[in-house]
Amino acid sequence: MNETKKTRKTGTEELPLMQKIVALCKRRGFVFQSSEIYGGLKSAYDYGPLGAELKRNIMAEWWRTMVHEREDVVGIDASIIMSPKVWEASGHVSGFADPLVDCLVCRARFRADKAPQVSPGETVEYRKEGKTIKGVAERGYVCPECGAVELSEERQFNLMFKTNLGPIDSDDNTVYLRPETAQAMFVNFLNVQQTYRLKPPFGIAQQGKSFRNEITVEHFIFRSCEFEQMEMEYFCPPEEAPQWLDYWKDERFDWYIRLGVKKENLRLRPHDPDELAHYADACYDIEYRYPWGWDELEGIANRTDYDLAQHQAASGKKLTYFDPQRVNPDTGKPGMHYLPYVVEPAAGATRAVLMFLVDAYEEEPPSEGRPDGRVVLRLHPRLAPIKVAVLPLVKKDEWLTGKSRELVKAFWRNSINAFYDEKDAIGRRYARQDEAGTPFCITVDAQTREDGTVTLRTRDDMQQERIPLEDAVDIINRKIRDS
Amino acid sequence: MNETKKTRKTGTEELPLMQKIVALCKRRGFVFQSSEIYGGLKSAYDYGPLGAELKRNIMAEWWRTMVHEREDVVGIDASIIMSPKVWEASGHVSGFADPLVDCLVCRARFRADKAPQVSPGETVEYRKEGKTIKGVAERGYVCPECGAVELSEERQFNLMFKTNLGPIDSDDNTVYLRPETAQAMFVNFLNVQQTYRLKPPFGIAQQGKSFRNEITVEHFIFRSCEFEQMEMEYFCPPEEAPQWLDYWKDERFDWYIRLGVKKENLRLRPHDPDELAHYADACYDIEYRYPWGWDELEGIANRTDYDLAQHQAASGKKLTYFDPQRVNPDTGKPGMHYLPYVVEPAAGATRAVLMFLVDAYEEEPPSEGRPDGRVVLRLHPRLAPIKVAVLPLVKKDEWLTGKSRELVKAFWRNSINAFYDEKDAIGRRYARQDEAGTPFCITVDAQTREDGTVTLRTRDDMQQERIPLEDAVDIINRKIRDS
Repeated sequence: MNETKKTRKTGTEELPLMQKIVALCKRRGFVFQSSEIYGGLKSAYDYGPLGAELKRNIMAEWWRTMVHEREDVVGIDASIIMSPKVWEASGHVSGFADPLVDCLVCRARFRADKAPQVSPGETVEYRKEGKTIKGVAERGYVCPECGAVELSEERQFNLMFKTNLGPIDSDDNTVYLRPETAQAMFVNFLNVQQTYRLKPPFGIAQQGKSFRNEITVEHFIFRSCEFEQMEMEYFCPPEEAPQWLDYWKDERFDWYIRLGVKKENLRLRPHDPDELAHYADACYDIEYRYPWGWDELEGIANRTDYDLAQHQAASGKKLTYFDPQRVNPDTGKPGMHYLPYVVEPAAGATRAVLMFLVDAYEEEPPSEGRPDGRVVLRLHPRLAPIKVAVLPLVKKDEWLTGKSRELVKAFWRNSINAFYDEKDAIGRRYARQDEAGTPFCITVDAQTREDGTVTLRTRDDMQQERIPLEDAVDIINRKIRDS
Repeated sequence: MNETKKTRKTGTEELPLMQKIVALCKRRGFVFQSSEIYGGLKSAYDYGPLGAELKRNIMAEWWRTMVHEREDVVGIDASIIMSPKVWEASGHVSGFADPLVDCLVCRARFRADKAPQVSPGETVEYRKEGKTIKGVAERGYVCPECGAVELSEERQFNLMFKTNLGPIDSDDNTVYLRPETAQAMFVNFLNVQQTYRLKPPFGIAQQGKSFRNEITVEHFIFRSCEFEQMEMEYFCPPEEAPQWLDYWKDERFDWYIRLGVKKENLRLRPHDPDELAHYADACYDIEYRYPWGWDELEGIANRTDYDLAQHQAASGKKLTYFDPQRVNPDTGKPGMHYLPYVVEPAAGATRAVLMFLVDAYEEEPPSEGRPDGRVVLRLHPRLAPIKVAVLPLVKKDEWLTGKSRELVKAFWRNSINAFYDEKDAIGRRYARQDEAGTPFCITVDAQTREDGTVTLRTRDDMQQERIPLEDAVDIINRKIRDS
C-alpha cells in the first residue's frame, strides 16, 4: 500500500452523492456501522449480506486474474501478527508515523499534514472562549475543528497497533498488527521461490486485513483503521524493473476498465519525485474521481531491492537469487547472485468496494417502465452480489413457487448465486434487485405452465424477453462469462 | 467456537505421521513457519501457494453450501476490532480466561487445566538443582516441563489480545481483537433481519480471523493464537432449538463426509453437562481422529438466547423479533415479541486444513507404476489446490508446449485452476502433483499431433487413458462437479 502523504482538504461535509451511497448501503444491507447497537466504533464498518458478497467477488476476481490465470504469480496467506523484527527491518517501527498536533484552544487532535492550509504569517479569525479573535498562523496550517493558530508542537505518532503475545505485557513481547500485507511476501521470498523453483520475473500475491491507527478517518469506508488489501510483489532482475512498472500500471488500470469502471472516472498519475515513499524509485497512482474529488485507488511502485536488502541485513540470511545464466560483471562469466527488484501493484479491497458502488450508482428519471424513476447499481455481472433473482409471479401458486425453487437449485448446482424472492408485487421486487445490482431477473408465471418459457428481465435496459425455462441456466451462465 | 476446556495430555512429542505432514507442508509449500528468517514467532504460520489455495477452497465450499445454496442463511463480514462493549456484554472481558500457573523450580508458565494430572497427595519425583528429589503433589497436577510440585497460585489470564485505538494508550481506548466471529452476528442480528425481512428460523454466517492469546499452542496449526473460523448463528423460535441442533449436527457431520473424509476418522460426541460452556444448553463436538488422538474439529451448540439477552440488556436496544402469528401466552392472541434461540455450528478453517491434509495423506508401497512407492494426498477434487496439471511430454518441442499452454488457458476461461509444468521427467512431475493433491494430469505428447488425443492420468488409481484434447475441459469440469 502506498504510504505517501498527500495534502487533502479536511472537512466533514460530503457531497449529496456520498450521503445517498451511505443510505443505500444501510438500506440494502451492503455496509452497516460496526457495533451499531453500542453507538458504533470509530471508522469501523461491518459488511452486510450484499456487501460481504460484493467484497468477496472483487477479491475473487483479483485472485483469479492475478494468481490463477498467470503462470508467473503464486499466492500466499500469511499471519497478521508477524515477528516484530519484520517491522524493525522494514522501517515501520521507526518511521511509520504521522505528525500529530493538539489544538490548544478546542483540544482537537489532528494530523498536521491533513489540516487546512494557510500561508505562514497569514492573519486568520477563529473563535475562542466565545469571542471571535484574530491570530497569526505561524505554521502552514490551522486547527481543522476551530481554525485556531494556537497549536502544540508536532510529534510523531506510530500508526501500527501494538499488542502483547503471551501472558505478561512487556516490551519483550510487543507485537504489531501488520500495517500492510507486502512484508510477508519479502520474508517468504526464498521459501516460495525455492519450493516452486521460480525464476524471476515472478510474483507473490496476498489478500487480507491490515491495520493502521489512523487519526484522520474519512469518507465512509475509504479510509478506516481496519481495511483489506490485495497486494502483489513482482520480483524481477533490477534492469527490468522500469519495464515491469510500465507493464503493471497498464495492466492494473485495464483491470478496472474490464470490470466496467467508467474510463472518464479513472486516471494514472505518476508521483512527483518529492512525494515518493522512502523505498520507492518510481510510482503511479491509479486515481478515481470520488464524490470528493480525485483520490487514490491503487498504487503501483518500483520498490527496488530496498525491502529484500533490509531483511537480508537484519536477519543475516542471504536472500539473493542465483541466476546461472546471468553474467557476473566481476568475473565476466555466467552465474551470479543478485537481489531482485520488486514492482508492487497494491490495491485496497475496502476502497474498491466503495469505488465500484459509487461508479455503479445511478438515479434514472421516470420512464415508461418505471414512472417513479429508479435507483440502479450497474455492477459488472462478475461483481454483482446476486447474479440472478428468480421470482414466481404469484406467491400463492405452488406450481410457480415450486418451479422457481427448482430453477434456483439448478443455478446453485452451476455455482451461480441465485436468489429466490416471492415477497411483494413484481415491480417492487425488480426495484429491490435494481438497487442490489442484480443483473438478471427471471419471472415464472402462468405462461410458463403453457409453453415452458419464463421472462428474462435485464437490469441495465429493463428489457424483457421470453426464454425457455430449460435454457435459463446456460443463457445466464454465458451472459456472465462473456460480460 | 467452542470454549469448553478439556483435559489433555501435554507433551511435545508428536507421532511420526505429524512429522511427515509438517515436512510435506514445508517441502511442497503448504505451510511455512511465519517470519522464519527471523527465527519464527510462537505458533504463527504462513500458508504457502498450495496451502493458501487449500484453505481458500475449504472456506469457499463452506460458503457455497452454508450461504449460497440455502434460502435461509445470509453472510456478513464484520470488523475484527469491535466496540469493547460487545466483549463486556458477551462475558469475554470478565470470564474468557485460562488458569495460569508458574513453576517455582524451572520457571515454566503453563495452563493448570492442561498440565499432567496426578492424584492429589501423590508423591512424585522430579529434578531440582541437579538432584532428583521427591515431593507431594498438593494439587491434581505437576509442572509439564520438569514435573515439580512447587507451584505458584493459579491466576486467571484473559485470552483476548488488547490494543489501543487512537494516539494515546489508556484504559479509555482499549479495544480487543475478536476471540470469535460469533458476536458480530448477534450485534448485527436486527440490522440483518430487518434489511432482508427474515423470519426465524434463519442464519447469519461469517468467516474470518480470530485471535486468542493461548498459553499452550500445540500440534502445528491445530491450536495457534491466530486462526480462521467459519461460524453460523441460526436464529429460531426457542422451542425449535433442540430440533435444529439435531439437524445441524447431522448436516455438519455429513459435510465432511461429502468432502471425502473417512467415516471411521470422524465422530459426534455430545458434551457432558459439566463440560458445557456457560452460554450453552447442549452441545456436540465433531471430533476427528488426529495423529495424537480424538480431538475437536467443530462444535455445534444450542446457545439459547444467552447472547441476544446479554446484548439487549447491555445496549438498551430491543433485540426481539416480532412474530405476528405466534400466540402470546399472556394475551392468548396472535402477535408476540420474543428473543430467538441460537444454534451455532462453529468450525475452524485452520483446523480443517490440518484435518483434510492428515486424512488425505497416504504412503503407497511400491507398485508397477511407481517402483519406489509414492506419497499421495487424496484431497477431494473440490478442495485440491490445483485441479489439473498440464504437462508437455518434451519441454523443447514448441508445438507441445504451445498446445499445453492453450489448454491451460482454456481451463482458466472455465474457472478451473490449471497448472503448467514442463520441468523434469514426466514421472517426477506426476510425483509432484501426487504430493500436491492434484486429482488430474493431462500430458500432451507426440501422439497428440497425430490423432488429437492427450493422456488423462488420474491421481487416485494412476490409471491413464487417452481422451480427445478438445473434450478435456468438459471432461475435467464434469469430473470435478460430480465428485
